[in-house]
Amino acid sequence: MTRTLTVGLVQHPCGPDPASNLNSSLDGVAEAAAAGAELILLQELHRGRYPCFEEHPAHFDEAEPIPGPTSKRLAQAAADYGVVIVGSVFERRAAGLYHNTAIVLERDGSIAGTYRKMHIPDDPGYYEKFYFTPGDGGFDPIDTSVGRLGVLVCWDQWFPEAARLMALAGAELLLYPTAIGFAPEEPPDEQARQLEAWQIVQRGHAIANGLPVAACNRVGDEPAARFWGHSFVCGPQGELLATAGDQQQVLLARVDLARVETVRRMWPFLRDRRIDAYSALKYRFRDTLRGRF
Amino acid sequence: MTRTLTVGLVQHPCGPDPASNLNSSLDGVAEAAAAGAELILLQELHRGRYPCFEEHPAHFDEAEPIPGPTSKRLAQAAADYGVVIVGSVFERRAAGLYHNTAIVLERDGSIAGTYRKMHIPDDPGYYEKFYFTPGDGGFDPIDTSVGRLGVLVCWDQWFPEAARLMALAGAELLLYPTAIGFAPEEPPDEQARQLEAWQIVQRGHAIANGLPVAACNRVGDEPAARFWGHSFVCGPQGELLATAGDQQQVLLARVDLARVETVRRMWPFLRDRRIDAYSALKYRFRDTLRGRF
Repeated sequence: MTRTLTVGLVQHPCGPDPASNLNSSLDGVAEAAAAGAELILLQELHRGRYPCFEEHPAHFDEAEPIPGPTSKRLAQAAADYGVVIVGSVFERRAAGLYHNTAIVLERDGSIAGTYRKMHIPDDPGYYEKFYFTPGDGGFDPIDTSVGRLGVLVCWDQWFPEAARLMALAGAELLLYPTAIGFAPEEPPDEQARQLEAWQIVQRGHAIANGLPVAACNRVGDEPAARFWGHSFVCGPQGELLATAGDQQQVLLARVDLARVETVRRMWPFLRDRRIDAYSALKYRFRDTLRGRF
Repeated sequence: MTRTLTVGLVQHPCGPDPASNLNSSLDGVAEAAAAGAELILLQELHRGRYPCFEEHPAHFDEAEPIPGPTSKRLAQAAADYGVVIVGSVFERRAAGLYHNTAIVLERDGSIAGTYRKMHIPDDPGYYEKFYFTPGDGGFDPIDTSVGRLGVLVCWDQWFPEAARLMALAGAELLLYPTAIGFAPEEPPDEQARQLEAWQIVQRGHAIANGLPVAACNRVGDEPAARFWGHSFVCGPQGELLATAGDQQQVLLARVDLARVETVRRMWPFLRDRRIDAYSALKYRFRDTLRGRF
């Protein structure tokens, strides 16, 4: 028995004009839908250049509510093509309260759900802690007509806890809108290690949870970084199904959601988790009480 | 600043004679020590053929106490060569109470500590739940003269929780004695996916925790499987430092333990974990209360 889902990933560069960027995303949606995609994943904050390359209050002007202009355009596209779209919005939730939010549009144009990025990075060129309030909604998947989607965002991809909590809540697929790139001053061997690590840690989530994973990353040179693209889709054994390069691209992959059960019967990690011995995962570090819990 | 540690991994086949198998391990220890290894990792249950290919009470005769014959031979070797050895013992703890136990010998021949395998597999050819009581000691690293070692065993390698708990307790290196192989009836493409997944999930632990990882796996045909070898060592970005083939081999790698701090400053995942939102990791599945915790 198979249950095949065609997934489309849209990676593109972003320039200074938000309308043009959103058109790039929607052109990709159209192309993916025409090629048969039923679920389309966009890159992180695809409407704008990555705003966190500097800390400046003016960048909050780029934020918008949900529902808002971007979510409405995405909803219209979802309805027009009859596809589920996972988009990404710099969300203004209230004055002084902003999030990096993934939004899932159902094929009828309704909002299936949102996910507010839980893990917020902050390092040179990625000053996200200035802009994005950490999500307060936890790690809940979003139910759609194509399955229960474990939507996470970028920095979340480095945290096995996030993937596991989505799996435990019944996610059938993990999806990561992403914006990650090379710092220009890093030597080529370091750049290669970073790109490989980025892919491997996410393939590791696929394996540890017996779930397919799709990650969509932007491309192009911006003040923060040279975004490295390489969007990919892998199956529940971490096996690569499709990988993009570092240019604008619509990537398609056929994912068999039924294979999750086949793989988990062979590798029943959920059966063997030692839930009696994991309580220290809630600590920052096991120093003060190390060894005794 | 660097803090280099030379690690040796000893992978070999095991036949029906325990004394001969232990000699294979100790020959490998001698070879690794002569080549400069300060820390030597042996494969899982290296004194015997993998006993769990069938469920038969007679195999419990292969178990031994700690201290016992195997631990004493390993201790002598550790003292003779002045190295730290991570071995693996089918441990008889009491009548009817057996464990799959890793043992760490200090370079003076003393026992630095033991780790009783926490996650116990059970699938065709690997009937471990019949033999091995799940460890009750939790995930505590073992302090040695070469560093604080996060020793885990085989099936543990598929569980991000185990690696994370070791990292949170200050482990400087993750070490996995392993016995994993191909079922003969599996087609080549499935075998390739399994081997790659096995390596990637462990490299993922290295990346997620910013720690080097070493895994030592047996080789050779036995009733349970064709053990696939491919022992490897990777650094804290998951970058491969050394990889073995599928034959008897002593694998050496130089690991820079100081690079852990360099990498973690750039990728400060421990800083950004959402410990306020991880409580559901202690549940088997988030079904009855899904979405509300």
